[in-house]
Amino acid sequence: MTKRFERSLDIKNGRVDMTHGSGGRAMAQLIEQMFAKAFDNPALAEGNDQARLTLPMVNGKAPRLAFSTDSYVISPLFFPGGNIGSLAVHGTVNDVAMAGAKPLWLSAGFILEEGFPLADLADIIETMASAAKECGVQIVTGDTKVVEKGKADGVFINTAGVGVFDESLDLSTHNIKVGDAILVSGTLGDHGVAVMAEREKLVFDEPVLTDSAPLNGLIEAMVKSGVELHALRDPTRGGLATTLNEMAQSASVGMRLEEAAIPVRPSVRGVCEILGLDPLYIANEGKLIAFCPAAQAEKLLAVMRLHREGRNAAIIGTVVEDENNFVEMKTSFGGNRMVDWLAGEQLPRIC
Amino acid sequence: MTKRFERSLDIKNGRVDMTHGSGGRAMAQLIEQMFAKAFDNPALAEGNDQARLTLPMVNGKAPRLAFSTDSYVISPLFFPGGNIGSLAVHGTVNDVAMAGAKPLWLSAGFILEEGFPLADLADIIETMASAAKECGVQIVTGDTKVVEKGKADGVFINTAGVGVFDESLDLSTHNIKVGDAILVSGTLGDHGVAVMAEREKLVFDEPVLTDSAPLNGLIEAMVKSGVELHALRDPTRGGLATTLNEMAQSASVGMRLEEAAIPVRPSVRGVCEILGLDPLYIANEGKLIAFCPAAQAEKLLAVMRLHREGRNAAIIGTVVEDENNFVEMKTSFGGNRMVDWLAGEQLPRIC
Repeated sequence: MTKRFERSLDIKNGRVDMTHGSGGRAMAQLIEQMFAKAFDNPALAEGNDQARLTLPMVNGKAPRLAFSTDSYVISPLFFPGGNIGSLAVHGTVNDVAMAGAKPLWLSAGFILEEGFPLADLADIIETMASAAKECGVQIVTGDTKVVEKGKADGVFINTAGVGVFDESLDLSTHNIKVGDAILVSGTLGDHGVAVMAEREKLVFDEPVLTDSAPLNGLIEAMVKSGVELHALRDPTRGGLATTLNEMAQSASVGMRLEEAAIPVRPSVRGVCEILGLDPLYIANEGKLIAFCPAAQAEKLLAVMRLHREGRNAAIIGTVVEDENNFVEMKTSFGGNRMVDWLAGEQLPRIC
Repeated sequence: MTKRFERSLDIKNGRVDMTHGSGGRAMAQLIEQMFAKAFDNPALAEGNDQARLTLPMVNGKAPRLAFSTDSYVISPLFFPGGNIGSLAVHGTVNDVAMAGAKPLWLSAGFILEEGFPLADLADIIETMASAAKECGVQIVTGDTKVVEKGKADGVFINTAGVGVFDESLDLSTHNIKVGDAILVSGTLGDHGVAVMAEREKLVFDEPVLTDSAPLNGLIEAMVKSGVELHALRDPTRGGLATTLNEMAQSASVGMRLEEAAIPVRPSVRGVCEILGLDPLYIANEGKLIAFCPAAQAEKLLAVMRLHREGRNAAIIGTVVEDENNFVEMKTSFGGNRMVDWLAGEQLPRIC
């Protein structure tokens, strides 16, 4: 796996830089060469966004759990369509749901900066409570720490989520097969552009809102449809491009996308053109990528489009054999383009 | 419950201050009046350091989980006897174990400050990996975020822990009964004094090390002893005094302690006298408080003393009827002293 990194980490003299949190190649290297190496165990080694855990046997059956965590350091804390609180609930609920598990419980750890207004904290907490209710999960345990002014940035929130598998579903990158169709559940780039617009005080005719939303309901409908789902993943940090590259590598396949089929809002496309950003690399917080046999893709698409969070779903490509695990895209102009990992840092602190 | 707060939180104009993270009364108020109110659910309302959760039925049996989280913001990151990594493992393992559950899995969320040396991060990660191994738990899922220089303080770590109950054990503050004996597993104040000594560059003849250690092995031995355990709790932030006050209130009882029976290292006592600190309010990271029927206390004590983490265990007091839920102490000079909640902030960022 290490061949994709041009040079090994300089652990002796190196320092953390912003690219280590970008979701791209530098982060993957940090995780692989430091965290995964030290914490080595089968659940972690699977490389999914959540651990799949088997409990001790109960009456001859071993219940299975999904367990995931994310820290949220988004700046600004409040942005069009949400705040760090809704993001912290949706993000972790979605990570648990992507395994095919039903999210049940969240923990919430707050790191507060001295001087942070209690009124803002109250807003964030209320938003978290509403978001949890909407997702059908409970925030059952928590922790609060306070650090001196200047030692944090308002509020950081960590949530961890636990879900249960109530059927023998196994959605994992390793199930992806050559010939599978690749679907996305809706428009790309909304979250990142909404946050950046707030950060840079950009004004648009049609404001772009975050897409932050719970996807467990959509996934439940997809599972119930009877379509043979192979894998789900939410394209957050690093966007669609980075997520597909991770998955291609993990599943030892290649992927071919159709640019014309990838849904992007005109307003998002416009902002990206002006600012030189690529929507394929921008974080989403309410979208998923799905893999299923090509013959069942139209059926799955129809099911997704019936759901509010999947109404703009589309089939965007195909899984192919490729020993280099490349993700390539046929552009709208008929050319071919490599879709590489995010290399640097496109938008820092987007989640 | 709200009667213990002299005034209600000024949510409109108030700001977070360091006391909100101290483990004392201000933190209890913030949690009760903001978090618990908004996130209201039975598991959270129990007021334990971990949620006790019942999974859906499997073959007619409902497996039970314990789930807990803590964020670690200790300063300095490295201190005598440990670092933020070992603390982040021991602290959460202990919170899960205090319910009587067997800790199995941890998540780990890192918030890194840009510019942090990778060599220090590697040390912390290695320490976490060793600590997890010693505790018999696996770090199965994680997350890494990076914030700009000056927006955090080196490294913050959140861990969440999941454990299973493999018997019908129910250790909870609500089980504490009038007449119960109160035991501690060893000397108090070691962790706080070790961290403060490092912070203030104090030099002692006999260096004080953190007591940070996993307690799940000790608890397993205590459970196996057959003694009727009622409740366990680790006296971390706010120390023994604040933890006992929380428990007295939650169980609607009073407590009477014997100062002469409370184990404190001479070196810790000396530092506390010089600096005007009280060991009863200082954080511990490898100690527990246990409640059991008085008639079984000597047996429990003997079992605890056979274990490395309980070798200095002691019976320190008794649970009494008291409608004010006061914790009082007979001092070594024969007087009586109220042992109140920690009111302000004794040692900031101790865990």
